[in-house]
Order: sequence, then C-alpha cells, then structure tokens
Amino acid sequence: MNEDKLELYYESINPGTNKTDIVFFKNIDLLLKAFFANTVIQGIDGKPVIIQNKKQRRVFVTDTNVAKIPQVNDFLKTIDLTEHSVITLPAGEQHKTIENVLLIVKKALEDGHMRNSIFTGIGGGVICDMTAFAASIFKRGAKLELVPTTLLAMVDAAIGGKTGCDFDEWKNMLGTFFPAQKLYDCPDFIQNLPEEEYRSGLGEVVKTGMLYAPKLFQIMCNEKKKILSRDSEIVYEIIKRCSLAKSSIVQHDLMEKGLRMELNLGHTFGHAYESLCGLGKIPHGDAVAWGLSRSIELSMLLGYCQQDYKDDVFACLKNYGWSTDPIPPGLNKNSADDLIKIMHKDKKNSGTKIRCILQKELNMTVIEEISDSDIKKVL
Amino acid sequence: MNEDKLELYYESINPGTNKTDIVFFKNIDLLLKAFFANTVIQGIDGKPVIIQNKKQRRVFVTDTNVAKIPQVNDFLKTIDLTEHSVITLPAGEQHKTIENVLLIVKKALEDGHMRNSIFTGIGGGVICDMTAFAASIFKRGAKLELVPTTLLAMVDAAIGGKTGCDFDEWKNMLGTFFPAQKLYDCPDFIQNLPEEEYRSGLGEVVKTGMLYAPKLFQIMCNEKKKILSRDSEIVYEIIKRCSLAKSSIVQHDLMEKGLRMELNLGHTFGHAYESLCGLGKIPHGDAVAWGLSRSIELSMLLGYCQQDYKDDVFACLKNYGWSTDPIPPGLNKNSADDLIKIMHKDKKNSGTKIRCILQKELNMTVIEEISDSDIKKVL
Repeated sequence: MNEDKLELYYESINPGTNKTDIVFFKNIDLLLKAFFANTVIQGIDGKPVIIQNKKQRRVFVTDTNVAKIPQVNDFLKTIDLTEHSVITLPAGEQHKTIENVLLIVKKALEDGHMRNSIFTGIGGGVICDMTAFAASIFKRGAKLELVPTTLLAMVDAAIGGKTGCDFDEWKNMLGTFFPAQKLYDCPDFIQNLPEEEYRSGLGEVVKTGMLYAPKLFQIMCNEKKKILSRDSEIVYEIIKRCSLAKSSIVQHDLMEKGLRMELNLGHTFGHAYESLCGLGKIPHGDAVAWGLSRSIELSMLLGYCQQDYKDDVFACLKNYGWSTDPIPPGLNKNSADDLIKIMHKDKKNSGTKIRCILQKELNMTVIEEISDSDIKKVL
Repeated sequence: MNEDKLELYYESINPGTNKTDIVFFKNIDLLLKAFFANTVIQGIDGKPVIIQNKKQRRVFVTDTNVAKIPQVNDFLKTIDLTEHSVITLPAGEQHKTIENVLLIVKKALEDGHMRNSIFTGIGGGVICDMTAFAASIFKRGAKLELVPTTLLAMVDAAIGGKTGCDFDEWKNMLGTFFPAQKLYDCPDFIQNLPEEEYRSGLGEVVKTGMLYAPKLFQIMCNEKKKILSRDSEIVYEIIKRCSLAKSSIVQHDLMEKGLRMELNLGHTFGHAYESLCGLGKIPHGDAVAWGLSRSIELSMLLGYCQQDYKDDVFACLKNYGWSTDPIPPGLNKNSADDLIKIMHKDKKNSGTKIRCILQKELNMTVIEEISDSDIKKVL
C-alpha cells in the first residue's frame, strides 16, 4: 500500500451496438410486418432479408403525424398492448423536449420493460433522436431500432448514433452517442411528406454531396425535375448514396472527435439561423442550405475555394429555392451580431473563436477557427 | 445500387475517458487546492503528484451537507464565479432525481459552459452519480472529475462509470456508463461522517472482500475495533484495497456484460429491501449487508457453499450490527412476496426468473437464475 495514485484503463466499448443494419423495404406494409416476423422478407430489390424479431418486447414511439399514415395507423391498432407499448407524442420540433424523452422512459417503466426490450422509433428526426436518447438512458441502455419516415431522418438524423433533445430554449444540448441496431428504410414514406419537409431533407442531401459524393452533387444539380416530382427511383438512389456516405464517416468517428465534424458543414450558420428565428420556425434543411451558401462564401473570402465552385453550389441551392443571401428570409441586417453570438455557443467550439467547416472544392473540406470579423463579412 | 441492406460497423470507443486516475491526498485542503493548481502536490505518502488543471473551467456540484465541511465551505467561497459555476443541491437519497440532474445541466448551460468544462462532483454516491450523469448527457458528453466524500462513494459509487438517478419511484432507472477522468480521494473526509453513513460504506467493503479480496475480508472480520474507531491507517488501507479490487473488475467490463455483474452480490436483495421501505429510509450499505446474508443463505440452500463459509460471513456481518435474519428490520413476514416482486424488476434480469449472484466460497462467485420458490425459502 505504498502508492498514492492508481490508474484504471478501460477497454473500449460499443455503446448500444457495434453494428447498424440498414435494411431497405419494398413498401411500408412489409416494413411494419418485419417487427414481429421471425422470417424472411423480400427486400426492395427482390432479395431475401432475414429478420429475427418474434420474441422481442418493444416500446414503439411515434408522433401524431406519422400515426395518421394509413399503414402505420392500421399497424398500431394490431399491436398486442399486453406485450408491447405504444407512445404517440405530439409532432414537431417544439416537442423535442426532455419532458417528452422522459415520457417515453416513464411509459417503458410503467409497462415493466427491461434492458432487452427494443425501443422502436417511427418518425422523423425528432422522434428518432428522442427515442434513441430515451433508449440510451433507460437502465443505462436498452435496445434501439429506428424507422425514419422523412427524407431528413433517412439520409441524416437516424444514421450514426447522435441522440438528443432540446432543453428549454437550448437546441440539442442534451444527448448521447448511441447507434441503433437496425434502421428500417422505405422510400415510400417520402411520397407522403409535405413539400416543406421534403425540401428540408434535400438540404442535407446537397451537403452530403458536397462533402463526400460528387456524383450525388451532380444528381442534385442536374435532375431537379425528377427530384422535385419525387421519382421513386431517384429518391431511392439519393437515400442509398447518402446512407453510404454518412455510414463511411461515422463508423470511423462515432463520437465526432475529428472527421465527423465535417458533417456540420452549413450547420454552424444554419443552427444559429434556426435558433434566432425561434426553434421550429425554419425547417432544419432549409437553414442548413442557407448555411452552406455562407460556408462557401466564407471559404472563398478566405481564399480556400474558387469562384467556380461557389457558383456551382449557389446555382444548385437556388435551383431548389434556397436563399444564398447574406441575410436569409425572416432576418434583417441587424441580425448579424445575434447570429454570431449564437454561433459562439456551438458544441464544436473549444476555444474563444468559432470553429467553421469550410471547403476548398467538392470533396475537400477543412476545419478552421474563424474570427468574428471575418464571419461578419458574409452576413 | 443493387443491395437492399447496408451494414455499418463502429469502431469501439471510450465514452468520457479511456482512463481514470485515482489520486490520494494527504488532507482535504491539498485536495481542494488541486483543482486550480498547475503544479506538483505532495501525495498522501509524500510522493509528488502532478496536477494540470489551471485553465479548465469547472462546474462544481455538491450538496448542503458537504458544503458545511469547513474546508469545503472555505473553498467554495474562493471560487471565481465569473469563470466557474457552483451548484449546491439538497442532501439525501430522496434528492437523487432527474429534476436535480437537469438543474446541474441548466446551470452549466446558463453559465455558458462547453464540452471541455469539467463537471466536478464533491459528495457521496448521490452527488457523484448525478454529476456524472449530467456530464454524460451535457452536449453529448463533457469532462468529469469526482471527489467522493463518503466511504461508500470512495470504495464503490465513484469508481467504474455507472451514472444515474432515480425517476419518480423507480430507483436508479435512468443513467449511462461514463467514467470520471480523475477521482480525488482523501481519507480525512471519513472522519466527519455520521455513524450511519460510515457503517453503510462498510457494507460495500465486506462485499468487495467476499468477492475479490480475502485479505480485506479478514481485516473486516478481525479488526472491528480499529475499524469502528476509524483508525486512519486502516481506513486508508480499506479504501485502497477496495479501489484496487473494483478497478480490476470494471476496467475489463465497464458495461456490465459479464464479470462486473458479480459486483451486485447482495444488491438484488438489498435494492428490494431499500425500495420496499421507501427510497432513502434504509442506508444503502446496510441493505446490501443484509442482502449479503440472504445471498449466502441461498447459496448454501442450493448447495453452492458450505456451512463454514456461511458462518464466517454471518459472524462478520453481525460484528457490525447488521441483520442476517430472513426478514430485516422494518419489514414483516408478509413482506417476502413484495420483495420478490421488486426483485423481478432488477436491471440484471433478462428472462422471467430472477438473476442472483451466489458464492461457492470467498473469492468464488456464480451467477444463476433462481426460481421464486427457492428465493422465498430464505425470506
């Protein structure tokens, strides 16, 4: 007993799971059937997909909008509530609260669920994030599967284990890293989305294209008509390419220690815009799209990228009706200082300067700490 | 784009930290000085310990009891509140609530803390668990250091990354795995503890001895007088041996997938006892000590251990005034069914039977699923 210091080294672990299966389903009914199947389901391309779910207890979490989708509505009615639980939360970003996360946990506790129950979120980013957060803190971690029903959730929110909720007026300030064991994707959900929500998802698609998928960026630039008409083949291709691109990043940097930070391209500006307008007022993807224009403007101003690249990005953004102006819709010239103030609270920052994601060109990203005065030049 | 399934494999990670330093300090003043030192401190054995903390922002969390300890009281007054934050919660198990965890987070957000701020819990198991939980969900993970001020927290609660709080009437049902980067231990804190709290800590010490440290078990059996008079050398030896034993387990099984489950010896019974009497009524270690007697009784009944071992354990427990009766103080003969009902809700269970930690002898533990009727025989 001579030492005055002990050192404990932990083996590294996988919170939740070491693996996420993203399974694509041909239609919504097949997807919903998979929860209680112990069988082989026909995949979207006709290939067999084996699902083993029969004996697992589940806590289904959805929202009032998703519960109205006819197939989901029918499905919810068939659930054996002596075995499983269903909680339907009010829809919308303003309900992404810690109070609602705790309602999920409470329901699970009341119904006697254990760690091996599967928390199953069916909904957009808000429902996926909250269900995952609830699963991660329930008895220090239950099982988790997600059914993203919006484009945004399929291409971004549901992939990669970021969970969370807002807390009072602070956006996404509570959360954990806790990936789902399975994602159930079905492009058919996209056909039901309100215009605004679909476009919001496309904002993240453009971002992913700019970061890692030149072909995807090209598609966004050239296939406007097909994309806006939600051509089912192109929708599936977009989801698939985004899932692949995001997967390849998060599997090497789940906890956002380095590479993954790039995925915040457009988000530092975008989050500030969302926050300043009041949470839930500006669709997330629209805010990100505007943020992309600011990031690239800033990249050019600081000599990182060329005029050509900026022109390509701006043309693509304008194509879908997004603002590329220094001040976006709903704000005015005096908003710049407020935006910067909010940007200083970004989770990525570690010093006193704002950490910005910038680009040299398509597929070439840099992260730099930028002074307030430089940021102000693009606002 | 032909596949209908993507597989994402994650690299394993270290939530919070890959390493915990447990540093022992000669006295409380030296310990408290270390927070803002960037310097060499004299360790408990006279050896130098290097601390580099000068520029870190901190969120101090403590409770009303600990804040009354003169050295802590003086220290809290010196903290620069423009740089650091202090939150003092009401003391006691009944305040280990999600509401109080959220108060910690709220204070940190209001004071503009970032992920690199250090959440610093100074207190017993309740404060350590809640501070750690708050740190783990704050912006998906801030830094964490703990100063356990009770025997129970030093030998058990603060080591090994289990965080959490109660939720309504459900004990420890919310939480995460999130180890602290540093533990600051000082045996002097033990001298101030109320009798009841000191004895409660000794319950976990006996458990650790039974599981992994025959020498520690011997000390508990043979050195009652020194132990009860809180002889400072023996207190330090106990803390050190427990820290070593618990460290060696949790560093190989942080998330309680296997080996670590053994640390719940006595806890399945103990938690049920605590819960049935009303949270906070029975000191945790006392409940565990009674649970140890039930586990060993059950072990003998099922043919796992011999009468000799049972006699040794019972003698040791009685030595410190703990009940080894089928029904502990505060309950009556009719409580057995209620205890079993609560034991069914234990986080360790995965099937329909209750998972019990049993022993063949000192240092030899087995985990078995036991039928209600067998459990009832020892209640």
